[in-house]
Order: sequence, then structure tokens, then C-alpha cells
Amino acid sequence: MQISARNVFEGKIENVKVGAVMANVKIKIESPQLVTAIITKESVEKLGLKKGDAVSAIIKSTEIMVGKE
Amino acid sequence: MQISARNVFEGKIENVKVGAVMANVKIKIESPQLVTAIITKESVEKLGLKKGDAVSAIIKSTEIMVGKE
Amino acid sequence: MQISARNVFEGKIENVKVGAVMANVKIKIESPQLVTAIITKESVEKLGLKKGDAVSAIIKSTEIMVGKE
Amino acid sequence: MQISARNVFEGKIENVKVGAVMANVKIKIESPQLVTAIITKESVEKLGLKKGDAVSAIIKSTEIMVGKE
Amino acid sequence: MQISARNVFEGKIENVKVGAVMANVKIKIESPQLVTAIITKESVEKLGLKKGDAVSAIIKSTEIMVGKE
Amino acid sequence: MQISARNVFEGKIENVKVGAVMANVKIKIESPQLVTAIITKESVEKLGLKKGDAVSAIIKSTEIMVGKE
Repeated sequence: MQISARNVFEGKIENVKVGAVMANVKIKIESPQLVTAIITKESVEKLGLKKGDAVSAIIKSTEIMVGKE
Repeated sequence: MQISARNVFEGKIENVKVGAVMANVKIKIESPQLVTAIITKESVEKLGLKKGDAVSAIIKSTEIMVGKE
Repeated sequence: MQISARNVFEGKIENVKVGAVMANVKIKIESPQLVTAIITKESVEKLGLKKGDAVSAIIKSTEIMVGKE
Repeated sequence: MQISARNVFEGKIENVKVGAVMANVKIKIESPQLVTAIITKESVEKLGLKKGDAVSAIIKSTEIMVGKE
Repeated sequence: MQISARNVFEGKIENVKVGAVMANVKIKIESPQLVTAIITKESVEKLGLKKGDAVSAIIKSTEIMVGKE
Repeated sequence: MQISARNVFEGKIENVKVGAVMANVKIKIESPQLVTAIITKESVEKLGLKKGDAVSAIIKSTEIMVGKE
């Protein structure tokens, strides 16, 4: 299955910690990745974002899914 | 400022495409990263996730923010 | 109250499992539904999405809210 | 690929509307579905949610992805 | 309708900007609010979060819905 | 660090409740705030949203992050 999510990064599970309802899964990504972020035009202008800028991609853990072949 | 988001990956902007309201920003991440994913206990069990498994971290583009020093 | 969320599906709770902080709620939806998904133009092109295609709507459990009259 | 997302609903695309950056995709789901929602324990208590309750599953369009075989 | 979302803040629309698919809506909230954030136990420990700390609640614009009576 | 997230509200922690994996953090925001919401053009039209309307900003708790200086 192909998925519309633009960010699919292959890695290996380093740790799984399970609670009553939720679980925390750590995945080690070794290879370089191209991240696609959709943000507001307003943010692009306020931060003055342009090609070549050193930036960080920031992601809340609850937004990350896990896929397995 | 420290942020509760567990995933902050440093990189460089490769492209910015701006629409009327939203923008698509591509960020190249060169170094290896440790990704933290919060998923259900149910998913850990159904996919049988454990240390050492080859998996993918999957993220919808609308969930990724950009930080700049 | 009307809500901007385009997807409101009526159903019946099948199960509630409560942990210390979070809970897992199962809702049975019996009637057909029209789902609205906002994805990138890029994904529409890469997957070649068009009217009539057989597809899946995929949603992480942490993104679903519950409403009750 | 198996995915940790608990909600994967099969349907057919009814409409695709594309903007400069984002697109709105309508998917018709014909068959009954079991929805898994992760909410706070606090909400379960405040709304008094229990088996058999008539409720709605509410989802913001930006949280829905599309999968295609 | 009662909703499981713990954060419902009453305000007044200051501006609406509409694109082809998405729109940017500015809402002025005048009264004090109590925000509920669900984050990882790990983040609480790494940031040393405790009662009385001066902090910020941070929310990506795509995660905010609008309700109207 | 500047962040693309348009909504950063300063407040004080009132309570922290920690589970095995997740935590519930309550933050008191005292000052008025301008909220930026990105919703569909479709929702703006269906709800007839315009300047001056009394509305609510609605946010699921799992979408809120915490920042600390």
C-alpha cells in the first residue's frame, strides 16, 4: 500500500515501553532523510524561511506512527 | 526554550513552496536520529513490535513544525 | 454547536478501557459515511488520486475525539 | 505494510479538489466500521462514557491520510 | 453536544483569510483559560515540569478547530 | 529558537498528573491571546464564519506541547 503521508523513514526499534493504554517506541533512523513539513504561509514569512537555512524539524511524539512489513 | 516535543531534528531547507494560506517546506536531515513514537498498546501487540524490528516511522506532513535559531 | 471538523460520524460505544491518564474508546459506526481528508497536492499527484479510485482513509487513534448529546 | 494506525477504512474517492499546496479528497465509506479513539481518562469521566452510549466520532480533516494499493 | 476535547476557549473572530482549499482564522480570546496538555512522562521528567513553573502552551495552527453556536 | 507554530501562550503550571507513559499537564493562561486556526475553506463557508462572530477555539489535549525557558 502507498500512503499519502510524505514522511516514511526506515529504521530499527531500539526500545518499547508499554503502559496500560499507550506505548513509547524508540526508532533509530540511520540514513539521511528529506522531511516534508506543511506550515502556514504566515510562518514562512515571520521566520523568513528560505532555501539553505539551518532549521529543525519538530514533531510531537503522538503524531508518529509505526509501519512494519 | 526547551520544548516537550521529543523529536527535534536539525537540517537544512532544500525548498519552500508557498500557496495562498499554506506552504510546503522540504528539510534535508543528514545525521542519524532517534525517533520517539507514542502509539497504542494495542498496536504494539497487533504488530508484535519489539527491540531490533525493522520498521518505518510515518508522519503526515501537516504534523511537522519548523524551528529556526 | 456546529464544529469546523468535517468528519462527524454517529455510532455506539462498544468498549471503554481506561488507564492512569488516557483511555481507549471503541465506537461502532453502522451507516455509510463521507470522509473529508486534507492532504498535500504532492500526495494527490504521487498516488495519482482521482474520482472512483479504491482507497483507504487512515487515521491515528489519538486524532479522534468523542462527542455526546 | 502493516501500520500502527488503528483506523483504516476502505472506500472510494468521490471528489478531489486541488489547491496550490493542499488538496481536499472526499472518500465514500460504505461498510460499517469500528473506530478506535484515544482520549483522556478525564474526558471519559466528564462525559460519563460507557458501553452502549450513542456518541459521535469527530475528526479534523487535516488528520486523515489516504492509502492506495 | 459535549465534546471530549478538553480545550474549548470562547472568543471572537478577528480575521478570516481564505485560499483555494484552506483558510486562516484569527480568534481573540479575552478571558483567562485553563489549558490541558497531554505530553509524554519522558518530557515531564526531561523538562522537570512541576506546579508553579512558568511555561508556554504551544499549538500548531492546523490542530485548532472552530465551533459556533 | 523561533518556532513555526503560530500559537504560543505563556502561563503557569497548575497541576501535573503522570501515568506509566503519558502525563496530563494543566496550564493557567492569564492574558488575552490571539489564536490562529487553519481549517478548510469548506468549513468557513458551511459555518458562515466572518469577522466579529462569537466562536470557540477547540483543541484536543494531545495536540498541545509545553515549552519552558
